[in-house]
Amino acid sequence: MRETGTARDGSSDGGPVIRRVLITGAEGTIGTALREYLGDRYALSALTKESQPFPSHVADISDLDAILPAFDGVEAVVHLAASPAVETPWPSILQNNLIGTYNVFEAAHRAGVERVVFASSNHVIGMYEFDGVPDIYALDDPRTYDHTVEIRPDSLYGVSKAYGEALGRYYVERHGMKVFCLRIGSVRGNDDPLDPEMLASSPALLDLATEEERRVRMRATWQSRRDIAQLVGRCLDVPEVTWAVVYGISDNPRQFWDISHARDLLGYEPQDGAPE
Amino acid sequence: MRETGTARDGSSDGGPVIRRVLITGAEGTIGTALREYLGDRYALSALTKESQPFPSHVADISDLDAILPAFDGVEAVVHLAASPAVETPWPSILQNNLIGTYNVFEAAHRAGVERVVFASSNHVIGMYEFDGVPDIYALDDPRTYDHTVEIRPDSLYGVSKAYGEALGRYYVERHGMKVFCLRIGSVRGNDDPLDPEMLASSPALLDLATEEERRVRMRATWQSRRDIAQLVGRCLDVPEVTWAVVYGISDNPRQFWDISHARDLLGYEPQDGAPE
Repeated sequence: MRETGTARDGSSDGGPVIRRVLITGAEGTIGTALREYLGDRYALSALTKESQPFPSHVADISDLDAILPAFDGVEAVVHLAASPAVETPWPSILQNNLIGTYNVFEAAHRAGVERVVFASSNHVIGMYEFDGVPDIYALDDPRTYDHTVEIRPDSLYGVSKAYGEALGRYYVERHGMKVFCLRIGSVRGNDDPLDPEMLASSPALLDLATEEERRVRMRATWQSRRDIAQLVGRCLDVPEVTWAVVYGISDNPRQFWDISHARDLLGYEPQDGAPE
Repeated sequence: MRETGTARDGSSDGGPVIRRVLITGAEGTIGTALREYLGDRYALSALTKESQPFPSHVADISDLDAILPAFDGVEAVVHLAASPAVETPWPSILQNNLIGTYNVFEAAHRAGVERVVFASSNHVIGMYEFDGVPDIYALDDPRTYDHTVEIRPDSLYGVSKAYGEALGRYYVERHGMKVFCLRIGSVRGNDDPLDPEMLASSPALLDLATEEERRVRMRATWQSRRDIAQLVGRCLDVPEVTWAVVYGISDNPRQFWDISHARDLLGYEPQDGAPE
């Protein structure tokens, strides 16, 4: 495995120790935010299923041989490529999330990549929210869920993300990789925590009857584009951590996913927060 | 979903409430033990990949349509079919353990099966043992690991079993199924806790240099054939439990996997124990 030099805080002068970073699914909502906010700090490359208006290795992550060249000389991988919808049916979950995530970890391992940031999801523990709606969104509701709670997947999508975390743990344990699993809330392309288009219909799985219920949910689960970029950057820069499961939301007035572990372990300091 | 009647303890007179039980992988070491010890108590049926000297639905669990008929009229499934070796390479893990286990849960769900007993594995948390050898096998070593410890898979096989547990949890949460995950130690066809053939070589992954080290490991991880049968029977009979993760070993002199949860939750009372 490549030497990474002495532990050096990424925020010190001289820039980060890790520089060459491959982003899978770089064309998506989060990938676009990372390219915008982290492009100056790292030498980013991209892996996407289809050709893009920016330079990208074009290959399907369900084909291990096809994606291997994209990992050459890379120091870290941010693995975003997946079927992102919570209602995704089994055939796509299998191809894109189970097979695809194995291929990305295995390709990273074979190329000697030091660390992988894996886009997990709050849906790994989605049933806590499912059982709590709509009261769980109230500003004075005391419930919070941290990285130690028992998993309760709400969907095959959530199962696939729990599997990705288990797979990441295996690569940490047996192959000396550093793996960071981000259970991300809701990042939006227009960065609007109260996006009118999303307010118009109930989110997947949840039965939120009124616009007000949907508004308070969006307030609690939002992560701004620059905050997810900061969180990913922290994972790329942090020197000593080999394994992390953290939640990704902004400093919202109501938070039922606990970001104190992200703050303590990684130095995450969200700059944004949804309005009350 | 089928009504199961009032909660009735399986050990009371009149026999178990659940009677029609399908065993996948019924020809294997554990399947053979279950057929021997539980055949009088339940109406067992079998699903196997190849034809057997006993009646069996012959189909590959990686083919959902092919296995569906085996689930007709079944009340419970004991899912043992899998690639069982800890060193199993990815292609077989994918087919038999990831796809196969989804197909079994999904077929059970579609057929209205009430409960699934899933053969998970201690390899879901195998790294605790891996880090502890050989001292962890000593009679006076205090380390024990229960169902609440963080998962630490030691292999792709271990990852596949962690995935199976997550999938089981999803079917509990969203489809009202009852699921019992058994992290089984070592069941042997000849029921010998100190099988000379196994003493002759080091177990997979672990670097146990001496026969004495291998002897103390086998003493700690053994589960007798009638004890695994009893544990599975408890899962089939227990009335109120909807979700369980428990370890499966006999009442051995050294136990680093904690079976108190199996005792408390399911009434497991091992009848055997390895010799000191």
